[in-house]
Amino acid sequence: MRAIVLLSGGLDSYTAAAIAKVEGFTLCALTVQYGQRHVREVEAARTIARVLDVERHLELPVDLRAIGGSALTSDTAVPRDRDVGSTEIPQTYVPARNTIFLALALGWAEVLVARDIFIGVNALDYSGYPDCRPEFIRAFESLAALGTRAGVEGARFRVHTPLIALSKAGIISRGLDLGLDYGLTLSCYDPRPNGRPCGRCDSCLLRAKGFREAGVADPLLLG
Amino acid sequence: MRAIVLLSGGLDSYTAAAIAKVEGFTLCALTVQYGQRHVREVEAARTIARVLDVERHLELPVDLRAIGGSALTSDTAVPRDRDVGSTEIPQTYVPARNTIFLALALGWAEVLVARDIFIGVNALDYSGYPDCRPEFIRAFESLAALGTRAGVEGARFRVHTPLIALSKAGIISRGLDLGLDYGLTLSCYDPRPNGRPCGRCDSCLLRAKGFREAGVADPLLLG
Repeated sequence: MRAIVLLSGGLDSYTAAAIAKVEGFTLCALTVQYGQRHVREVEAARTIARVLDVERHLELPVDLRAIGGSALTSDTAVPRDRDVGSTEIPQTYVPARNTIFLALALGWAEVLVARDIFIGVNALDYSGYPDCRPEFIRAFESLAALGTRAGVEGARFRVHTPLIALSKAGIISRGLDLGLDYGLTLSCYDPRPNGRPCGRCDSCLLRAKGFREAGVADPLLLG
Repeated sequence: MRAIVLLSGGLDSYTAAAIAKVEGFTLCALTVQYGQRHVREVEAARTIARVLDVERHLELPVDLRAIGGSALTSDTAVPRDRDVGSTEIPQTYVPARNTIFLALALGWAEVLVARDIFIGVNALDYSGYPDCRPEFIRAFESLAALGTRAGVEGARFRVHTPLIALSKAGIISRGLDLGLDYGLTLSCYDPRPNGRPCGRCDSCLLRAKGFREAGVADPLLLG
């Protein structure tokens, strides 16, 4: 059975996709090239798709820079050294991003006769994004049932969020158990010109906290 | 107050946008260039945006041909001479199209601090698309409240569907009352090489029925 996996090239989506594979799904990976600053993430997604032996990998350009409104899609500076435990929604929030991503995944799912979509959202060690919460995901499933031909014909689309209740350390431990190589992933919102992570954005800070709490070294920072 | 209006270049979205204007909104028009066969519709959208004196017109390319699954986004033939009164969902259904369009409109609305989105869907003289029904629209509003920063902060996004309960003739009469020039619009799914409507696709048939029932001539077919 096919599943659409949203694959960004980051640690979370790699783990979520690997879990889908372990659960027996044939993977169709969707990477939305949304004009994010960290285009190297898209290259990482390509490598991960190959490693996970996906059936298809669709890279879809959707220029969210034209919409703007986020430090990831405009020239606003990416915040550094923020308190990642804060509940404030940061400047890296991309307006309606997961709604847009899930909508595209839904369209592709319908075409491929897939009923399962995997997304690596996480409501614990996360940046406070509203579209990572369980109630948002459930609302999207309701919408999918109403807004598609398949839904009208009785199909139920399921949005799987295997990471939603895990800490970042829990995600990393789960991935390492599955044999994942996190050296392939890139999480940084604002990598240096040489491609190395900045170490100071939310994403770097949460990743570092995760590896620290999981008691392992981040392979990306080795060598 | 700003409203995002989804503007395709067809008759319905022109009318919906004009109603938004009459209601006092400042219009920000979003045209999704989704790889539809009828690219001339996009040129029509440009003209209509100018005529309606919109504040902004964003043309956003999102290549739904990469996803496929529809006669409008693949090489499947556009059905001709179909019974447009049929309740069957036709081949021109684009998987999750309105979910994708509304998601993009939502992102832009959040950036522009708009809370109102206008979409020219119609549940009466329509082609049986599931994502044109009131229950779908209400579900999207619920999703918008949950999946955005503004929603979390208490904003309520409203998706206006001023045409949803009108017949095609009713839409045309309303538009003519507003002084709209339907000669600027293009509805055909499969225009001839010279840009003239085919006259046989669902969209042409519904349009012809609408003008006939409204008792007026279609200016597009004159001269």
